Amino acid sequence: MNNAKLIALDWGTSSLRAYLLGEGGAILETRSSEDGILRVQNGAFVATLKQACGDWLRAHPGVSLLMAGMIGSKQGWLEAPYCPCPADVGAISRALASMQLADGRGVHIVPGLSCTGPDGVPDVMRGEETQIIGALPDRGRQLAVLPGSHCKWAWVEDGTVRDFASFMTGEIYAALTGHTILGRLMRLEAPHDDAAFARGVRYGLGAPEALLSRVFSARTLGLFEQLGADALPSYLSGLLIGSEIGGALARNPDTGTISILGSAALTQRYAQALAIAAVPAVAGPADCAAIGLWRIASAAGLAD
Amino acid sequence: MNNAKLIALDWGTSSLRAYLLGEGGAILETRSSEDGILRVQNGAFVATLKQACGDWLRAHPGVSLLMAGMIGSKQGWLEAPYCPCPADVGAISRALASMQLADGRGVHIVPGLSCTGPDGVPDVMRGEETQIIGALPDRGRQLAVLPGSHCKWAWVEDGTVRDFASFMTGEIYAALTGHTILGRLMRLEAPHDDAAFARGVRYGLGAPEALLSRVFSARTLGLFEQLGADALPSYLSGLLIGSEIGGALARNPDTGTISILGSAALTQRYAQALAIAAVPAVAGPADCAAIGLWRIASAAGLAD
Repeated sequence: MNNAKLIALDWGTSSLRAYLLGEGGAILETRSSEDGILRVQNGAFVATLKQACGDWLRAHPGVSLLMAGMIGSKQGWLEAPYCPCPADVGAISRALASMQLADGRGVHIVPGLSCTGPDGVPDVMRGEETQIIGALPDRGRQLAVLPGSHCKWAWVEDGTVRDFASFMTGEIYAALTGHTILGRLMRLEAPHDDAAFARGVRYGLGAPEALLSRVFSARTLGLFEQLGADALPSYLSGLLIGSEIGGALARNPDTGTISILGSAALTQRYAQALAIAAVPAVAGPADCAAIGLWRIASAAGLAD
Repeated sequence: MNNAKLIALDWGTSSLRAYLLGEGGAILETRSSEDGILRVQNGAFVATLKQACGDWLRAHPGVSLLMAGMIGSKQGWLEAPYCPCPADVGAISRALASMQLADGRGVHIVPGLSCTGPDGVPDVMRGEETQIIGALPDRGRQLAVLPGSHCKWAWVEDGTVRDFASFMTGEIYAALTGHTILGRLMRLEAPHDDAAFARGVRYGLGAPEALLSRVFSARTLGLFEQLGADALPSYLSGLLIGSEIGGALARNPDTGTISILGSAALTQRYAQALAIAAVPAVAGPADCAAIGLWRIASAAGLAD
């Protein structure tokens, strides 16, 4: 482990993932825990960090620390103000927020990105910019889709994030199933139902502008016994994702290659939904956060 | 009160409204309570009915009872199966569900309406059909908008409901403000903010297909301090209603005259939003449920 070059953390709201990176960004070791920033009490970030990788810190005293994610938010350790789009790895690396630990070690935090959407309305991401930098090549036109609670769609050109949009798909799915009449006919713990999901995607894609109406089908199809309690959760998930895809492609249909950056299960769902929309996509590399952190560290001269 | 012709009830999920109607449907007396069907325990509908208007029943032994609303649902007193669209007052009056009280008095329940929407997906209403029958003239092309938890848009021609669509606007507003990150920056009890509402309507109307994305503006505009905690609830309400209007007009832009049938506060909001969409609307008559019950009773020969 003597060739360690960087300690890199993807530190989000509800989880923490730490990478010990060597020459060329090679992953030497990985740790993960549920110690997201919401779990850190009274600003005890140093203690949580040491719990996650205190042994790395002791073994590699001269190596810098680079972190991305909500750790750089107002609720995090040190605020790293949003870097406005268009932004590439150079702009991001010049906007790091930096401090020193008691032992003098440099700690650096990747800023989130902001953009100005339609009608001057701002949008933000934090953490996803690092995955995008890690996943996408420096040349060509790309669209990155990062599924999740607040799914991000980012339009990237030659390594520069030009524009992006958040979609509250995951969180709205949870609110609809947990806190509206739609959840009452559903067995939420049912396994994924591919056919029901696909039916939902098609219905959502067919009129994304009518989402507030079309979601009601997750009730009437149950009432009329056309879909059962086990199929309805997948159907509603497909309907929301179909509407999301319709809305995103309407914003900017010039996608280039589409990469999905997410967990295996969500990547699989979005790939299926995008195929139904006739815009096939590829899965991004695993550990794109680690690759992105390495690239940003390299651009900032932290990994030499 | 000797000229009473009909005891008419609008008996919904969470409220009950009773009308004693005289010659020509004149409203002689009105009662209302929170004794919706959800409050009725162990099928004690007769007892609840007597509590609401037992004196009317005693005073007018020969007069029929006609009820509309969720009282005719599976969870109600007697199920009145949905009447399929297209449906007019004649079709509805021929599809009443009927029974007798212990004293031989006829009790009749108005069926809800069903229709087949895009891709064969069913939609339903129950109670709103009676308001529509009461509010709209028998001639001409009309669009009725009935705001609420599950807002209904009904396209009506010469007194026949041809097609309709439910929008879950009210219930989704409650889920978003109560159970997602959007509510955290809001002071929900703030008074209505006209300007913020109008801004939301314009943003929702601008791209109804991007609703899952645009709702996130109710967070970012707060984060960037462009809208305060008091303005954000009205903003989100406008955004949802704007998206609803965009989706409804996309389904069928051939509106004819638009009538809004709802409470004064909601009617005012929808009128403002529709004016922004350049499709002005008028408020329907008060007590359109009573008028509708009278018309249905007349067509069924119950009010002679």
